[in-house]
Amino acid sequence: MLTSKTEFIVRYAETDQMGIVHHSVYPVWFEAGRTEFIKIAGMSYSEIEERGLLLPLISLQCIYKGFSKYEDKIIVETFIKDIAAVRIIFGYEVSKNGDGKVITEGETSHAWTNKNLKPVNLKKAEPGLYELFIGLM
Amino acid sequence: MLTSKTEFIVRYAETDQMGIVHHSVYPVWFEAGRTEFIKIAGMSYSEIEERGLLLPLISLQCIYKGFSKYEDKIIVETFIKDIAAVRIIFGYEVSKNGDGKVITEGETSHAWTNKNLKPVNLKKAEPGLYELFIGLM
Amino acid sequence: MLTSKTEFIVRYAETDQMGIVHHSVYPVWFEAGRTEFIKIAGMSYSEIEERGLLLPLISLQCIYKGFSKYEDKIIVETFIKDIAAVRIIFGYEVSKNGDGKVITEGETSHAWTNKNLKPVNLKKAEPGLYELFIGLM
Amino acid sequence: MLTSKTEFIVRYAETDQMGIVHHSVYPVWFEAGRTEFIKIAGMSYSEIEERGLLLPLISLQCIYKGFSKYEDKIIVETFIKDIAAVRIIFGYEVSKNGDGKVITEGETSHAWTNKNLKPVNLKKAEPGLYELFIGLM
Repeated sequence: MLTSKTEFIVRYAETDQMGIVHHSVYPVWFEAGRTEFIKIAGMSYSEIEERGLLLPLISLQCIYKGFSKYEDKIIVETFIKDIAAVRIIFGYEVSKNGDGKVITEGETSHAWTNKNLKPVNLKKAEPGLYELFIGLM
Repeated sequence: MLTSKTEFIVRYAETDQMGIVHHSVYPVWFEAGRTEFIKIAGMSYSEIEERGLLLPLISLQCIYKGFSKYEDKIIVETFIKDIAAVRIIFGYEVSKNGDGKVITEGETSHAWTNKNLKPVNLKKAEPGLYELFIGLM
Repeated sequence: MLTSKTEFIVRYAETDQMGIVHHSVYPVWFEAGRTEFIKIAGMSYSEIEERGLLLPLISLQCIYKGFSKYEDKIIVETFIKDIAAVRIIFGYEVSKNGDGKVITEGETSHAWTNKNLKPVNLKKAEPGLYELFIGLM
Repeated sequence: MLTSKTEFIVRYAETDQMGIVHHSVYPVWFEAGRTEFIKIAGMSYSEIEERGLLLPLISLQCIYKGFSKYEDKIIVETFIKDIAAVRIIFGYEVSKNGDGKVITEGETSHAWTNKNLKPVNLKKAEPGLYELFIGLM
């Protein structure tokens, strides 16, 4: 199973008046993880979009076990949890400052669609891409 | 059961290159709904924070059934799904342009904590507040 | 001179760990003001985009004289400062809670472009639109 | 003169329906540049805040000469433009994908304040810090 690691520093704008990173920022970080995962898999999400495919979210789940603060060094680990002809599920684990403790875990389900957001059967439309993702799981 | 309705117009900055509102924006809208729900309940979340109580998220769930676009008129309906001494669960239904069709539904679980993010038993610490929320369910 | 007033409540996600609204939020509010200004002028920015015209920013200026906090009621006043065949300058004054005191003032310059971000001479391409904006100044 | 270079990849959430990075994102990138500049200077902005000092913005200026897209590799160059006892001005140049062409340049003026956002004379309150910044210009 391929797992990508994406690292960056918490931005001041990402904090809220509780003094911690706002919960709505984690889905944005998951997405940064997804971008890198796909790139490591051998293509880029930009290329997928250029082929006329989009991956809009069907569902999102986050479990917050800890928190992060401004200037923390974040690590997002991204992997494929499940894949089928019409959808793909990514999983995420976020930790900080190299201590390996998971502060947030998440999951996003995506539909394969065309540019008009109509569902696409990836297995039929892009069998090579489908096989590539199967192989990464 | 109290249900609040929060209305606003989609901002350009909330769209992404798919031409629709980015999925990470919905949790921000849920929060705007929560703010209004608590205000309608007879206080404000600012007042709750002034009493030394915070409501950080434990978990977040979004199910995306449709999408919204720039300048759409959004309606967020907010209600309490469940409450216990140490946590509260809010539910959300987002629709647009008055057609009543739910485009996104969500759920957020929150812990009652003090300013240092340590858990607080609301039933003991603020029984009046606890009873108020029970009555709204 | 037309001046539009756009009102909304500060969102929790818009605050930062200083306990005030993050400075990068004001340009988003200016944009919400611009959306309403154009709508009051008799069309919508969505319609302008459907005609194949975009209004990307050339420059942005904000002067912060005060601050705003979570749950403050914001008022953005928007007006046209200057217009020419190839660009338009909007001005903004942000106040809170009805006290009329300007907490942030801003200015955005925009180029008229086509969908490929190439400059367009509005006076020639859309004389009706050009005259409309001239009339609002 | 010290100039820091901060690098990161454009996030999908940072794009808008024009297909480019939304203009309100650049101030957030400037801030990421500022964070790194201060760290390279030998401390961290978190440490400055722990000493009871804040650096809220007085003004912001952005000039947009180009644009950036999802997955572009961004470089923010950050430097001190001017410093006085009561304020500091940072400058920024943003380029992408290593071609050195400036797509956005910016400037932020900041006041030195205490935690209650009251102005502080840095030269008197923290002469060591003041000298450090002078030396970086």
